[in-house]
Formats: sequence, structure tokens, C-alpha cells
Amino acid sequence: MKLKAARQAYQPICPDILKNLLSLKCFEEKATHPSGQLKSLFPKTWESPFLWARKGRSLKKKSLRVGVLFSGGQAAGGHNVIAGLFDALQALSVKMRLIGFLGGPSGLISGKSKEITKQLLKPYRNQGGFDLIGSGRTKIASQEQLEASLKSVTALHLDGLVIIGGDDSNTTAAILAEYFKSQDSPVSVIGVPKTIDGDLQHPYAPISFGFDTACKTYSEVIGNLGRDALSARKYYHFVKLMGRSASHVALECALNTHPNLTLIGEEVAAHKRTLPEITKTLVELIVDRASLGKNFGLVLIPEGLIEFVPDIKDLIAELNLLLSQRKETVETVVLKLSAKSKACFLSLPLQIQHELLAERDSHGNVNVSLIETEKLLIHRVQEELAKRGDYTGSFNPVSHFLGYEGRSAYPSNFDCNYCYALGRIAAVLIHQKRTGYMVCIPNLKAHPKKWKAGGIPLTTMLHLEMRKGQMKPVIAKTLVDLKGSPYRDFVKKAHHWRLEDDYQFPGPIQFFGDPRLTDSLPLSISED
Amino acid sequence: MKLKAARQAYQPICPDILKNLLSLKCFEEKATHPSGQLKSLFPKTWESPFLWARKGRSLKKKSLRVGVLFSGGQAAGGHNVIAGLFDALQALSVKMRLIGFLGGPSGLISGKSKEITKQLLKPYRNQGGFDLIGSGRTKIASQEQLEASLKSVTALHLDGLVIIGGDDSNTTAAILAEYFKSQDSPVSVIGVPKTIDGDLQHPYAPISFGFDTACKTYSEVIGNLGRDALSARKYYHFVKLMGRSASHVALECALNTHPNLTLIGEEVAAHKRTLPEITKTLVELIVDRASLGKNFGLVLIPEGLIEFVPDIKDLIAELNLLLSQRKETVETVVLKLSAKSKACFLSLPLQIQHELLAERDSHGNVNVSLIETEKLLIHRVQEELAKRGDYTGSFNPVSHFLGYEGRSAYPSNFDCNYCYALGRIAAVLIHQKRTGYMVCIPNLKAHPKKWKAGGIPLTTMLHLEMRKGQMKPVIAKTLVDLKGSPYRDFVKKAHHWRLEDDYQFPGPIQFFGDPRLTDSLPLSISED
Repeated sequence: MKLKAARQAYQPICPDILKNLLSLKCFEEKATHPSGQLKSLFPKTWESPFLWARKGRSLKKKSLRVGVLFSGGQAAGGHNVIAGLFDALQALSVKMRLIGFLGGPSGLISGKSKEITKQLLKPYRNQGGFDLIGSGRTKIASQEQLEASLKSVTALHLDGLVIIGGDDSNTTAAILAEYFKSQDSPVSVIGVPKTIDGDLQHPYAPISFGFDTACKTYSEVIGNLGRDALSARKYYHFVKLMGRSASHVALECALNTHPNLTLIGEEVAAHKRTLPEITKTLVELIVDRASLGKNFGLVLIPEGLIEFVPDIKDLIAELNLLLSQRKETVETVVLKLSAKSKACFLSLPLQIQHELLAERDSHGNVNVSLIETEKLLIHRVQEELAKRGDYTGSFNPVSHFLGYEGRSAYPSNFDCNYCYALGRIAAVLIHQKRTGYMVCIPNLKAHPKKWKAGGIPLTTMLHLEMRKGQMKPVIAKTLVDLKGSPYRDFVKKAHHWRLEDDYQFPGPIQFFGDPRLTDSLPLSISED
Repeated sequence: MKLKAARQAYQPICPDILKNLLSLKCFEEKATHPSGQLKSLFPKTWESPFLWARKGRSLKKKSLRVGVLFSGGQAAGGHNVIAGLFDALQALSVKMRLIGFLGGPSGLISGKSKEITKQLLKPYRNQGGFDLIGSGRTKIASQEQLEASLKSVTALHLDGLVIIGGDDSNTTAAILAEYFKSQDSPVSVIGVPKTIDGDLQHPYAPISFGFDTACKTYSEVIGNLGRDALSARKYYHFVKLMGRSASHVALECALNTHPNLTLIGEEVAAHKRTLPEITKTLVELIVDRASLGKNFGLVLIPEGLIEFVPDIKDLIAELNLLLSQRKETVETVVLKLSAKSKACFLSLPLQIQHELLAERDSHGNVNVSLIETEKLLIHRVQEELAKRGDYTGSFNPVSHFLGYEGRSAYPSNFDCNYCYALGRIAAVLIHQKRTGYMVCIPNLKAHPKKWKAGGIPLTTMLHLEMRKGQMKPVIAKTLVDLKGSPYRDFVKKAHHWRLEDDYQFPGPIQFFGDPRLTDSLPLSISED
């Protein structure tokens, strides 16, 4: 027997309110929309209320045709959104069709799709990855892309379109909802909050799906590395963690594993800590531990850190500008940088200099996620220790990057349940002809049976941001709140972890047995 | 509730034969010892028979004092060897003491130890790591070290010494057993086969402990990366796997996860495949897959591969000789290499050139485990694809190294049971005043209740090998047998995996629920 089959048999816990979908009503709660320019961009979907599922009168079954797509990087549980959607459509319809757009938003634009049947879906229930229909990073922004999208959903006679994605993709959902309505199309557009980064949050959506599984998968590895450090007593494990700009993943993993030091990007930004200052913090840790005979340790580094370090941030901004004009080599770029950035650039190891010039994201900018921050910090620490002369301890660093293995893992029970419920809510909103909503469960700390189910009007989540010289409506990424409980809880304990070696060993995600083990919540939300 | 506590409560399955330790006898089976020079090095322990636990007459309880140490890198289950040893000593003794030597063999030499009590041991049962007493890599070889070791065991009035380690450490156990006996010391020395590398094998000891957990932990990650590749459809994941020279770990992980390509060091050596030939194999894979529209894939690389590639092997041999004389820089070394090795060296990326010169193991040799083979291969493939000109697919490689996270993981049920039984056998052999044995369970494929229990005379495992210009007795590392069933089984299937994407997703190790999931065996031995 294999885990794949065992997980296929898992039946997600369904919130009581979402059990009988035909005895529901949508309770409306007035939402406060930001004022100003945004309103003119979203005249058709402006001022929608929050929606909450309540027990209500008997709903009529309809004939429903719904499209669904994944957008962006994988997050564990995506297939369960589709499973929840599928099962709910079956319950709400006399006749239903579920169409998956292939390869993400580009499938919507080109009309490439396949029908998702019960049989096809079965092996994907409670499984990781997005491989049932694939995903992609194409952004739907131009007039042509909007028109092509409308053409696709119209050709398929869809009643609704479900977009499973992060902040950018939910922005797209808002834009599509507005556009479809402006074109008198009845297609409901519903977003589902997906991202392992944990940076798509709202008071009514405490966390996106996939965050829990990714952090638990990383914490398994980090815990093992802590045990390794403690047993071998000779290695410093430097672990960089996926998670884009925000440090939610690093913070959650720190709460799970108690490393000796965790760098938090938002803290670095708030205190304007430069690379030399961060290096000093690391060197002090190593020296203090060596004085206790501990030449080993465990350090967590969020991948977004480098963007928050003021000297590097300035350098990257200058590089982005220079590189947007033409390809530069190390030699030519150095001549054009400001004196301060030149000094910063030249202080970096050769490998990092090359990475800063060579790697570009889809906008042509420096791809910070590919910069080996963990190796940069190790290099700097080695230089500083060598300079000190009085350091008699050893320093054997090992660098790690945890990313892809966490986003495509088997979803935890929490993510299985959460995603399944999100998919069911999406079906209800489409049945109710609501558009421009992101589905949400505001009380994730409660037992899944007691979860509430609702929709957040996407327009309330938007604000205007400068993008490529233009003000654009976007959903702001939620950064770690330095006044929030998870961070405050971390700060309270982190000092003790510095020298005391309180490493925790969360171990691999468990799917069977005691629910206290199998159904645990992310600590960042359970300690909120 | 945390996994740590849940695992502490696990009760390893005890083989029936090892349940009532006072109704046992040691059945002797004649062993064939190699003839020749070795005999003269081991006159006191030569020609010991194999030993097998059989039901027998009532044994008398004794007062037993036993020392134990870990040697070398961690392997999951080490703490359970100590737990099995402890519990068995309690059953076999009127009064017992178990002493742990701290930090590995150096603790034995210096006499640094601590008593292991029931209370102290409790939180370590079924846990990963070696942190109860630590480990180390000191080799006991010189006359002074042998004398110091004897002094330590004598001062503590020990009846036995258990050495938990790999091939080198079991060689040390053989040498200590002979030395103690030659000095009329009654201390039994017993070795326990530990190594995640799987290269310490014997017909009566199909696998060392820790191999199963490490491979399952790596396979979890590799499976996730396969799912990632299949979902994103744009990455080539190149995964290097810990495991020293032999490719057992890569082979086991391949059987578990079905990657598109797995390089096997022993196969490369057998066919004398050069770096350009290996590169060609990879390029062909990428081109063939691109022609099917598949610009993604999963490739496994054993860390020992580089030692088996004939051109690199020759280069490393030359470098080891040159570097043993003095420190060389890239410039000075190039002048001294043979023409062939010079060409090979200069063809390598700068980063790898530096690694070849900078990283040394404890013997001053090139430290092959730190060479980034995965990046070297990626670099070579990129060069070749660029040269071809006709390649229109994309190639986005991501490199990974899996190592430390697998050796210090929570032991699988298999490793928990296996280690606990090995510890119990060690106690029986000490009670029976046997010395110079490695404990073994020959029929690991059977249900743990039916496991046999025995001892292999260490002298039968030795052969003579040139080390630093002298013939030394060592236990030969067992490499992958290209005629053995695991490899043949792999070859039969691997061709299909190349283009078909049959990725398996083993997922995280499960400890609770269906025993078919929780108690599975390594495929390399179950398919044997």
C-alpha cells in the first residue's frame, strides 16, 4: 500500500454550514471600500458587501458550468479546492460541468481546457501539486487578454470562473470580474487565496492555503538539521527559506523549531540594519556560542531578506535601472553605480556579483529569490572571523535552500480541509451569481466543523501602487506585523534559543492517528 | 501533543528469539576465514565461528558493566541500539551499568564518559540523532590510542564495549578486540553496523541501520520535486544524494521515486564513462523530452559519482599527490598536472576548480563529498545545449543536495525495530563473553517477530588494502552489485521512466496507522 492511495481515501472534514448546500442563504455585511480613484476603475463591482453563509431557505438546483485555473507557484491543497468545487457543484446542480483551463491563465486566454470528471479527479484528491491541469505565471492585463478571456468563458457557456492564486492572481480576478460585468457577461469570477508565502491575508482570511504544509515540510527538515547540529556539534546550518519578500515562512518555521537565530526581513527594514550590522549579529552569535564550547548552530534566513537590507536594496534598485537599459558586465556596471552602491557591490563575493547581474525575473529585474543570500552571509562571517584574530572556535557552515519540496508536498489535513471548504464556498457564490469575491474562512482556529464560510469583495482588498511608472490597482502583500502576536511571541522566546539549544524536532507530517498530531494549525495563526 | 512524545511511547517489535534472553544459547556455525597475512595480525580472534541465538537452557544473570560509543556520522536509530542494549542488560543482569563514551572514539581514548540511566535514556527512545552521547570521527589506530582505550575500559571495570559505526569503525572494533585479548583483558568488543550509505553489507547483514530512514526522507523530498516538475513543467531538478562512494542511496531512492535519469557510480566505472559521455547522456535526455514538449525533469546523482568518472578520478588522484606536498593555487597546480588531467581540470567551471583545490578531508585528500557535482553537470549540459544550436526547448535547472536532513531524522519503524534488536543481540554476546563480532539480523525481509539474531566474526569481514603506503586490514565497502536484483530491477524499469514521467510520491514517513505504510522495508532489500 502506498501513501498516495491512502490519502485518496481521506475524507476532508466539511464545515457544518457547508454540508447541506441547498439550505443556505448569503447574509450580507456592509463593507467599507477605500475612497478615491479606485472606485472609477471598478464601477460595476464597487461597494459589494461581505457575504456570509447562513442557514436559510431551500435553494433551487441549477444547471451550472464552471471553469477553474491555477495561477502561479504550487501550494499544497490546490487539487482539493477543485474537489470541493466539484462535489459542491454536484450538490447544487441538476446538471454540471467543470472545465479546467490548462497551464494557468494562458489556458484561459487561449481557450485550452479539459473537462474535469469524477473519474479524472479521483486520483488527485488530497494530493500535492497542480498537475491535474497545470499552472502558469502569465498575467492577464492587456485589453486583448481580457477580450480573449471573455471569449473563452463565453464559448464554454460558463456561469463562473474560479481563479486559484496569490495576490496578483486575485487582483486579476477583480479585474476580470469588473471587465466581464462591464461587457454584460453573467460569468461570476471568484478568487481563492493560494500561496505558501503567507503574504495574502485579510482580517477575514488569516492565512492562504499551502502555507501550513510548506512550513511543516520545511520545519521537518530544519528540525532534523537542528538534531544534526546538536549531535555532530561541529556544523552551522544556514537555511534559506522560500517565501518571497515577507518573512512569514521563516517566522512560522522558527516558532516550530527554535533555531539559534532567525533573521526577519521586516525587522531588518524597520531598524535599517545594513549588511555589516547583520554580519555582526551573526559573528556575535558564533563567538558567544564558541565561548560555551558550542561550535555549531542553526540559522534561518528568509529569501526576501536581501530586499530589506538598506544598502543592498539601494544597490538592487540601481541595478534594475541600469539593467533595464542594456546588458551589463561586472566591469561596465561598476563604472555606472553610485559611490555607495559601488562599494557595496564590490564588497560582495564574485559569485553573488554574477548572480546580481545574470538572474532576471520576468520583468527584467534582479531575481532576488535566486541570490544565494545564505552563502553571502556565510562568506561575510568567515571574513569577519578571520579579521578578529582572537576567535579560537571553529566555523563549519553548511548552506541549505528549502523551497520547491514544500510547495508540492502532500497537503496536511489542515490544508486538505481548508481547501475543500474553499472550493465548496466558491461553488455557492457562483450558484448565487456573486462576482468579484475572494472566498474566505475567517475563524480557522476553530474546529473545521465550526468554520464559517464567506466571501470578501475583492475591491475592498485593492489599493493603488506604482508599477512600471503607472498607478495600478493591486492587492498589497501582507508583511510580518512587528506588533502582531506571532512576531511578539517569537521575540519573547528567541533570546533564550540563542545560546540554550532548545531545538524542536517536529518530524514529518503525520496523516493518521491522534488528531492533535495530524490536525494541528500553523502556530502563527494558533498563537494569534 | 508533539511527535517527540508520541514516538517516545513507541514500543519496538522485539524478535521472538530475543524476548526471553535467559533461555538462549549461542549456536556456532563454522566460518570461513580468508587465508594469508591477515591471520598473523589477528592471532587471538582468528577463526571465531558465526553465532546464532537459539532457544536454549537457562542462562545465569550476571553483574554486567558495558560501555558504548557512536562513531562517525549520524544514522537514524542509534539511540534505539542503546535502548535495546540497556533493556537487555537489565534482563541479563543482577546489577548493570551502561556507560556512554562522549563524542565518539575520542571519548574512549580520553575516558570521557557518562552513565546512561533509565531516566536519562527515556526521552531518546525512537528519536533521531546521536545527541545522547555525541559522536566523532577520531580513528583509533596508534599504539598509544590502543593503550589509552584499554586503560579507559579497565578503569571502568567494563565487561564489554559496543561500537556503533560504519566499515572503518567495525574495523576498529576488530582491532580493539584483538588488542584487548592480546593484553589478557576480558572486555568483549562488539560492533553494530551503522551507516546511511548502505555500503556495510554482508550476506548475513543485508543492510546497515539508518539507510532506510535516510532513503525514505530523501525520497519524500525527491517525490515532491517530481510533483513540482510535473506541475510547473519548466524545471529540471538535479538532486545530489549523500552516500559516499557507493550509489546504494541513489538506487534505493530511484526505486522509490522513478526519476527520469539516475546516474549510478558503479555503472559509470564499469563502462568507463567519461564526463563528456555522461554529459551526452543528460543532453540526449533533455533533447528527447523537449521533442515531446517536456521541458522538465528529475535527475538523481550520487555524491560518489565523481570518483568513478575515469577522467575526473585520474585528475583527483594527481591532485591528491600534488596537494599532499604543498598548498597549490589554480595557477601552480595547472603547470604540474599531466596533459590529460590539465585539459580535464581546465574544462571545469571555476567554482569546481576552486572546490577541488580548497576542500580537504581529514587525510588531506580532495573532499569529494563537497564537490558540487550537480552544478558541474548542469554547467556542462548548458554548454552543450548552447553549442548544439538546434535546441529550441528551454532548460531551467535547479540543483539540490540532500544529506544532513536524512541522517538525523526520526527513525522509521523499520530502523527503530532493527536497532532495538541489534542492541539486544550485543548485550547477549557480551553476556556470553564473545568478542570481535558484528551483530546481525540476516533475514530482515521477514516480519520482525521472526527475525534471526546472530554475530559475524569481524575477522571474516576483513581484507588487506593499501592505505598511506601500507597494507592495512579493513572492511571493504560494498558497492552496488551490477548483477544484483535491485540494480537489475532498476535497469529494467529505468528506460520507461526516461520519457514517461512515472514519478512516485512516497510522501513523509508515517508512524501511525496501516502497518503496510508504517513498517515498509527498503526496496533494495525487499526486492532482493
